[in-house]
Amino acid sequence: MNRRMVLYTVGLIILLEGALLLLPLLVALLYGNDCTVAILLSIAVAAVLGGGAVLLARPKSKRIYAREGFAITALAWLSLSAVGALPFFLSGQIPNFADAFFETVSGFTTTGASILDPASLNTMEKGLLFWRSFTHWIGGMGVLVLLTAFLPGLSERSIHILRAEMPGPTMGKFVPKLRDTAKLLYLIYFVMTAVMFCILMISGLPAFDSAIFTFGAAGTGGFTINSAGLSALTAAQQWIITVFMLLFGVNFNLYYLMLIRRFRSTLRSTELWAYFGIFAAATALVCIDLTTVYGSFSEILRHSAFQVSSIMTTTGYSTANFDLWPNFSKAILFILMFIGGCAGSTAGGLKVSRLVLLIKNCHAQFRRTLHPRSVNVLRFEGKKVEEEVQSGVVMYFLFYIFCIFGIFFFVSLDGYDLTTSLSASVTCFNNVGPGLGAVGPAANFSLFSDAATLLLSFAMLLGRLEIWPILILLYPATWRHRGKSAIGKETK
Amino acid sequence: MNRRMVLYTVGLIILLEGALLLLPLLVALLYGNDCTVAILLSIAVAAVLGGGAVLLARPKSKRIYAREGFAITALAWLSLSAVGALPFFLSGQIPNFADAFFETVSGFTTTGASILDPASLNTMEKGLLFWRSFTHWIGGMGVLVLLTAFLPGLSERSIHILRAEMPGPTMGKFVPKLRDTAKLLYLIYFVMTAVMFCILMISGLPAFDSAIFTFGAAGTGGFTINSAGLSALTAAQQWIITVFMLLFGVNFNLYYLMLIRRFRSTLRSTELWAYFGIFAAATALVCIDLTTVYGSFSEILRHSAFQVSSIMTTTGYSTANFDLWPNFSKAILFILMFIGGCAGSTAGGLKVSRLVLLIKNCHAQFRRTLHPRSVNVLRFEGKKVEEEVQSGVVMYFLFYIFCIFGIFFFVSLDGYDLTTSLSASVTCFNNVGPGLGAVGPAANFSLFSDAATLLLSFAMLLGRLEIWPILILLYPATWRHRGKSAIGKETK
Repeated sequence: MNRRMVLYTVGLIILLEGALLLLPLLVALLYGNDCTVAILLSIAVAAVLGGGAVLLARPKSKRIYAREGFAITALAWLSLSAVGALPFFLSGQIPNFADAFFETVSGFTTTGASILDPASLNTMEKGLLFWRSFTHWIGGMGVLVLLTAFLPGLSERSIHILRAEMPGPTMGKFVPKLRDTAKLLYLIYFVMTAVMFCILMISGLPAFDSAIFTFGAAGTGGFTINSAGLSALTAAQQWIITVFMLLFGVNFNLYYLMLIRRFRSTLRSTELWAYFGIFAAATALVCIDLTTVYGSFSEILRHSAFQVSSIMTTTGYSTANFDLWPNFSKAILFILMFIGGCAGSTAGGLKVSRLVLLIKNCHAQFRRTLHPRSVNVLRFEGKKVEEEVQSGVVMYFLFYIFCIFGIFFFVSLDGYDLTTSLSASVTCFNNVGPGLGAVGPAANFSLFSDAATLLLSFAMLLGRLEIWPILILLYPATWRHRGKSAIGKETK
Repeated sequence: MNRRMVLYTVGLIILLEGALLLLPLLVALLYGNDCTVAILLSIAVAAVLGGGAVLLARPKSKRIYAREGFAITALAWLSLSAVGALPFFLSGQIPNFADAFFETVSGFTTTGASILDPASLNTMEKGLLFWRSFTHWIGGMGVLVLLTAFLPGLSERSIHILRAEMPGPTMGKFVPKLRDTAKLLYLIYFVMTAVMFCILMISGLPAFDSAIFTFGAAGTGGFTINSAGLSALTAAQQWIITVFMLLFGVNFNLYYLMLIRRFRSTLRSTELWAYFGIFAAATALVCIDLTTVYGSFSEILRHSAFQVSSIMTTTGYSTANFDLWPNFSKAILFILMFIGGCAGSTAGGLKVSRLVLLIKNCHAQFRRTLHPRSVNVLRFEGKKVEEEVQSGVVMYFLFYIFCIFGIFFFVSLDGYDLTTSLSASVTCFNNVGPGLGAVGPAANFSLFSDAATLLLSFAMLLGRLEIWPILILLYPATWRHRGKSAIGKETK
């Protein structure tokens, strides 16, 4: 393990966060907020910690392997959240540090679950509100991707970091140079964000509100602006957000393909069709189930499409308290929480591509059982799926389910009912946001003990980084300088 | 597909069921029950249907392969349940056939979930009560195992049937001859049943009651005798049942090892230690959680041990309404529903051996990620686990989780809350019996629509036969006489 390089990169990330905090500082100054001091202090802490780490580490070798990639990613996200929690904590807005940490993890992981009473949002200062939602935008595409894109000094080897941070079963490079891929990703992300922001402005929403909702949708996060949230928006604005949530849940590779005019390849994507297919089917079912709840068809369709889009992309916004909807609709939303959006998007969850691969695997298993000697080649997106990727996806699913059971077990210690404990675990782990029961869309996560709050923060990180980085971090053998022969080979 | 052989074997099974129905007939005659006629009629139907199938099919070849094994097992269990439902239906005790079918499937699959109001048990005739619980005993060890043990005519090839019917990731033969293995299994099963029956008799329970509770515990079923159920028993009797439920949840291979005096091998079984470890840990946690619910420690321990043993072995008996227990205890019981007992026992669920193998797989995945070039050999019960068995277990888990989601989705159409729909799906699929919420231990399954009742019956069969046989039955390619080259090779 190249510990110096790990420390060095994490230091860089904290410095980057300090720089990103200048934006909410600007907002705070603009609105003359009291939280300006807290933000300034946080920037100072970031500068000292980050700068200190960078100066202290000075790595002799910049070599990064899978292990370092996992460790950097996990530690970077933990540090980001700890430092990012300071503005809330130092300003006294969230006096309990565990709660502030939860809120920030929820921001960066684009979960959107909050320990704040919605009413307290009405009095929250604009600077803090901005930072809270801005973390969604930063976390959506990944902060290490950002680092790779714009900072020199990280070698081409940093594919191991990107692989650890980018969601999905495989990580593709658009272009030969990794830094260019990262830049392109952020360019697409930035343009789409700008377009959404402008459209919301044109629809009549104030600039600040537009920014908050854009950050929430772009990062598929879900933090809102006041206690009224999305229900205060016009129908048109709700539709705009519905569409953009869906768009941000699409694999960004496809946007790149469209950019280089390979429209046919885009349209041939199995994941894309599966994604929109699930969206359409779920919306139709919820529509049928809601006929007795709302008066007009347009209202039914709007609420259904919005909620399905919001939960499936793991944004977690809500135009209505869906915890009061009929149980079948709730069951659909509960299942959608697991599936999530596309790989290579800002959405969380298991990812549609994994679901498709798992189903294809099931089908292959059938054929194997019936025709033991036949050779099965599994194809996805026009390519043969390597044996290794296949078993990787199935193993990921195993870890995924075990994690949910594990989190649920410990969350249950707080003594809430099955619906609450289970949906809280599922919604945090999949980075959705609201759950059902006592953590439904009209409620919040303040009911949990500090231990459960920290556990759920851990669950959000586990889900956002897709399990490995966090688990590998906790695995003792990771930290051994030199192990058995295998490690020697690996670091050759 | 050797369809004639499939039909022939299913016919034999129905004839066997007709013979087994003589026992409840005897009971009905003994108590002078009105249901005697219904049972007689059912025997006649079994004779006609079974005899007809046997005469009609007259297979030219008795060759059985994996496919035939799956098809025979699935069809046998479906037919068993359909014919077995007749006594309830014809006697008018359960006037709705879907309900009668559910009750019988629940019996044979040793689930123990009932659509009957507990109060109606008080007036049920002894002959029917006996048949209801006797199905547990028959289904526990497997009816095809019984057929293999005592009927000539099934060739040594019937390992494919046993493999399809016996729970667990692998199927071991004790002795070279398959029929002898089947006989030994039933011998152990029979002796243990007799011992339990005698001990319950000695404890002061009437013969009929002892038989019912013995059938329920031996098959890990859970049907009871009247509305008072287990709470009417003395503490000693509850402890007896606790111990025997646990014993029937142990892998029967171990009893065989003990029989041939290989005690050391028995004690070295990882599955055994894991099984008792989980039991002890879960009991301890529930004990701590129940300190505020019951007065004395002996009472707390008795209820905890009983309930953990009952849920873990998927028996489903209850000495108390655990749906009223604190939520943490309920969460533990909910998780135990998934795990189940040991492979090669009468218990349902995922099976402890699979859980151990899955955890070992996770551990191996860790090592692979950290040391990509290292060679990992997975060992279980002192033997190397073949690559095929490993991936088989992981794939089984994938199907297992998908099935639960699928069942839950369709059960949700009935519109009950998450706790009810989810726990009903989990408890039926894992052959436990009671769930939580509206299907808790004090409630019953009569609330569901006919469609959901049939779906849950299907879920119980899916769980008992461990998914493959039922799914393969529904897979169109199974029924093709001759497919592509692969099938030709297979049936060489």
